[in-house]
Amino acid sequence: MAVVLYIAASLDGFVADRDGGIDWLDQATSKADGDYGYADFYASVGTLVMGRRTYEQVRGFGAWPYLGKPTVVFSSHRPDGEHPEAEFASGDPDEVIASLRSQVEGDIWLVGGGDLIASFRAAGLIDTIILTILPVLLGEGVPLFAGAQPGGGLRHVETHTFESGVVQLRYDFA
Amino acid sequence: MAVVLYIAASLDGFVADRDGGIDWLDQATSKADGDYGYADFYASVGTLVMGRRTYEQVRGFGAWPYLGKPTVVFSSHRPDGEHPEAEFASGDPDEVIASLRSQVEGDIWLVGGGDLIASFRAAGLIDTIILTILPVLLGEGVPLFAGAQPGGGLRHVETHTFESGVVQLRYDFA
Repeated sequence: MAVVLYIAASLDGFVADRDGGIDWLDQATSKADGDYGYADFYASVGTLVMGRRTYEQVRGFGAWPYLGKPTVVFSSHRPDGEHPEAEFASGDPDEVIASLRSQVEGDIWLVGGGDLIASFRAAGLIDTIILTILPVLLGEGVPLFAGAQPGGGLRHVETHTFESGVVQLRYDFA
Repeated sequence: MAVVLYIAASLDGFVADRDGGIDWLDQATSKADGDYGYADFYASVGTLVMGRRTYEQVRGFGAWPYLGKPTVVFSSHRPDGEHPEAEFASGDPDEVIASLRSQVEGDIWLVGGGDLIASFRAAGLIDTIILTILPVLLGEGVPLFAGAQPGGGLRHVETHTFESGVVQLRYDFA
């Protein structure tokens, strides 16, 4: 049961534009590429974890896209309104993940965003990174790897290139 | 005659550690990988351009490694001491590159660092990016892509993976 950071970014390391938007993801990908392995990955996922801003953004898309998979939203406060699709956690990521590992099956998808990724990295909780690099330079936006964290070596597992120019790299933590 | 940004970075987008050091480059690469295409690339290069801090760092390595290839150092002031191996330029990158294009043959290697890369990007001067991603997260350091710059699309040309886990991506500006 691995914690997997599965995320798309621009070549210059942004996961969203400066307004948090991700329209550029559609512009820089192609249906001809297939689904970039998403269906297989998603089938392996038992639980999703994400930060509050990511959660609010996903809710803004309309229908909740992850029905049937428990989602834990790390947030210092519970957002307003009804949220039947998510549990909220304000505790230590270490403890929350330990609890998830004992309760649910399948991998844990660390969806984002930057602050939560930084917390998970600092706690050594990420087992695998699957980074899909789009052939675009955003110049500014929400950084994938925000904040100073302990460094570390990775083991490159595989890289796939797609017709559109998208490149997907997979690493395990060494 | 192309301006080529040929550079190595950590997966989280740093080209040097927080002290400007690059020892981690040696630690995260392997002689078994060969030279990552460096000899072929270097043979195609007619001129090098770099920022002042990069220049000072290269000088610190000992013998100048780029003898026989003109090097232009962008600097607002001329560093102390004799520098027979470099010309200094304080002007507009556009004009300097236009002048180089008319004077010398071969590609122009944009060596670094971050500020100069940002200036070149802002001026639309980079034709090709050859980015060698090492399987390491530094967490902090000198960012490859610093500062907000106009975004833009890239055309992915090719990606090579190496035994050690190094991945080299090549893009042309669309």
